[in-house]
Amino acid sequence: MTPLRVGIAGLGTVGAGVVKLLRDNADLITARAGRPIIVTAVSARDRNRDRGVSLENIVWHEHAMALAVDPDVDIVVELIGGSEGPAKALVERALAAHRPVVTANKALLAIHGAALAEAAEAAGVTLAYEAAVAGGIPVIKTLREGLAGNRIDRVAGILNGTCNYILTRMEEEGRSYGDALLEAQRLGYAEEDPTLDVNGTDTAHKLAILARIAYHSRIPIHAIRCEGIQQITQADILSAKTMGARIKLLAVAKRGDGGLELRVAPTLVPLDHPLASVRRNYNGIHVLGSAAGPTLLVGQGAGALPTASAILADVVDVCTGRYQATASRFRFFSAAHDVALLPEDAELTGSYARFHVPDRAGVLASITQIFSQHGVSILSIHQGTPDAQGHATIEVVTHPLTSRSFFAAIHSIDGQQVTLTPTVTLRRL
Amino acid sequence: MTPLRVGIAGLGTVGAGVVKLLRDNADLITARAGRPIIVTAVSARDRNRDRGVSLENIVWHEHAMALAVDPDVDIVVELIGGSEGPAKALVERALAAHRPVVTANKALLAIHGAALAEAAEAAGVTLAYEAAVAGGIPVIKTLREGLAGNRIDRVAGILNGTCNYILTRMEEEGRSYGDALLEAQRLGYAEEDPTLDVNGTDTAHKLAILARIAYHSRIPIHAIRCEGIQQITQADILSAKTMGARIKLLAVAKRGDGGLELRVAPTLVPLDHPLASVRRNYNGIHVLGSAAGPTLLVGQGAGALPTASAILADVVDVCTGRYQATASRFRFFSAAHDVALLPEDAELTGSYARFHVPDRAGVLASITQIFSQHGVSILSIHQGTPDAQGHATIEVVTHPLTSRSFFAAIHSIDGQQVTLTPTVTLRRL
Repeated sequence: MTPLRVGIAGLGTVGAGVVKLLRDNADLITARAGRPIIVTAVSARDRNRDRGVSLENIVWHEHAMALAVDPDVDIVVELIGGSEGPAKALVERALAAHRPVVTANKALLAIHGAALAEAAEAAGVTLAYEAAVAGGIPVIKTLREGLAGNRIDRVAGILNGTCNYILTRMEEEGRSYGDALLEAQRLGYAEEDPTLDVNGTDTAHKLAILARIAYHSRIPIHAIRCEGIQQITQADILSAKTMGARIKLLAVAKRGDGGLELRVAPTLVPLDHPLASVRRNYNGIHVLGSAAGPTLLVGQGAGALPTASAILADVVDVCTGRYQATASRFRFFSAAHDVALLPEDAELTGSYARFHVPDRAGVLASITQIFSQHGVSILSIHQGTPDAQGHATIEVVTHPLTSRSFFAAIHSIDGQQVTLTPTVTLRRL
Repeated sequence: MTPLRVGIAGLGTVGAGVVKLLRDNADLITARAGRPIIVTAVSARDRNRDRGVSLENIVWHEHAMALAVDPDVDIVVELIGGSEGPAKALVERALAAHRPVVTANKALLAIHGAALAEAAEAAGVTLAYEAAVAGGIPVIKTLREGLAGNRIDRVAGILNGTCNYILTRMEEEGRSYGDALLEAQRLGYAEEDPTLDVNGTDTAHKLAILARIAYHSRIPIHAIRCEGIQQITQADILSAKTMGARIKLLAVAKRGDGGLELRVAPTLVPLDHPLASVRRNYNGIHVLGSAAGPTLLVGQGAGALPTASAILADVVDVCTGRYQATASRFRFFSAAHDVALLPEDAELTGSYARFHVPDRAGVLASITQIFSQHGVSILSIHQGTPDAQGHATIEVVTHPLTSRSFFAAIHSIDGQQVTLTPTVTLRRL
């Protein structure tokens, strides 16, 4: 049987992982794909680095662009990264040359996905990206195929292992945000410059991709309201515990009468919700389907081999013709219609507020009265013991309500100088 | 666009669910499948039953066999059930007539899967069965496609909602097995005759299907060692709690040097393992892949709409040509080679024993000495307070060891009359 010939552009740990898996599991992959899959070409910046895998019998291209049009490459795997520059140019060139492309590049897809998908369809080839979201977890396949009969009511996900590791360590070990970040960096769970992870951008990129599949819509990245975890303190972590919850950086896409709600934010996840148990560097996705009900997927969201596993799922799908059909008939990124987005103040969620107040009779009554005036229905209240300065903490979790009502109430409470410092708020799943 | 025409044989709640979903989500399904999918024919025993869905414009066949060859049917959905008789005849007839078949029938596949898959391949059509295992959870697709690059080291699953509901209620409410079963029957989670669920047969059928996919092997159903939950008592439930675990009816397929281990048995699942959190009627599957690492899938394992969701995933896959390629190139059920099975006494697991002993000096020492003589390494021991009769309970959890060594030790302990009653044993994940 003629082998499928793979060219890999970008040979970091994931690329080396793909080379390794295709070698180690050659027998299995041949059986599953119907024919052998071999790496015939690679390109990367540094030819002399030891990558722990033999590159014998593999052509080395100095330039990724040459790999894209190498006649001995049937499918191009893009692992260069970055939304612009060489990664984008390579994918455009490969598609134009009628080569199917498999990529793990969430930034590229989040920003240029629609144009690239159109280019792929125009060329009649596949653009596949299982590895772009949640590493080894087959969440793209699950949303696109496994739940094809369902209207998707909500997708909620922990999609960034760096943030989840930091939040888990802050909770388990009582570390500060800064200490937990340092530890994550030391263990390789966080980059040297962790900005795009901790500020929520990476999570927003992944949410854009999932929401496009779930809702068949052109979703611009700026439509996603995005907060990171940099402001989370031990006080927040302890508050979550008090209220029977854990803080997770959650990506949420939710369908409602008023439109689609899209956000990334630190969120209180009640302990009895399955996403609360997704810890350390794991990723988890919780999907509410109109027929399947809730489905939870948990696994390794990053790392060389888990990401390589997702790359290979796409390569095998392309090899067997499974993905081809999907790409041409199910125009995710290139959906002609834009989805109606829910205005921010109409978002409907449970909310949490932590008030810093003087320990004085009537304060709790004032707060509950103002909430009541704004139609806010309270789920639970917790009043802490006053400190030596006679300051106390009152924590409130509400039933789901519009952000408009909730923030109007908070604004009113802070405005009436019931509180000593600006009130801290969080959402609740 | 020409619609894909579906014929449904067997119109219970799942069949009605398929009719309903295809109507309610017609717009979405058309987008996802590339063309409309409509039900053109049904067959069932009782024409006059109200099924909560309109059957207008749908041809009613008195005989399923007529549906199998109806020229206005492009794909046959088999929901009759049972491993023999009309279900088997229908599937054989439809495949012979070159109609793709989608089925939820685990018993049929577990027993006749190899022959039916060969018939499907001979006819050049698809036999798809996502709904046969774990209802709405896309576990077949995950194993077959999502993890295609992985060698599967282990699949462990809670695959029967009836058993999981009963065990959860025994634990949460302190009910007896009988009371919990009655409650499950009242709520529709257990059949009037629950034998095939509670004795593990249904779970074994599902494990056979998963193991064939994971290990590309012809796996005869009798190769699976199978115990049910009928013998589980409150004492077992409490013991599990004492040892930091929960009892689950677990299906396990595990690859090892000595061969493949396949079993269904009540098993202690440590509380920190993600399968311990799969409660009530939910199903959960934990897969260890050589590249992806651990992947957990949780969802509704049964019920009309979750099962219909899985049926539709297959129907859409057949419609887009996704499944066709797989079935013809990836000969799961018809694998030519048999896998080597691990002999029972070579199985390597952690084990649990509960000894009923007189409260007498030296008993614990005797037990630990006999364990030591048999090379059994102990993970933890718990000794209960003696009762009024001066009888006590000693519970032991071992590190992983062969069943041979473990049961030799238990046999020796019981034989030396250290114990008052035969020792109770369980496996541990």
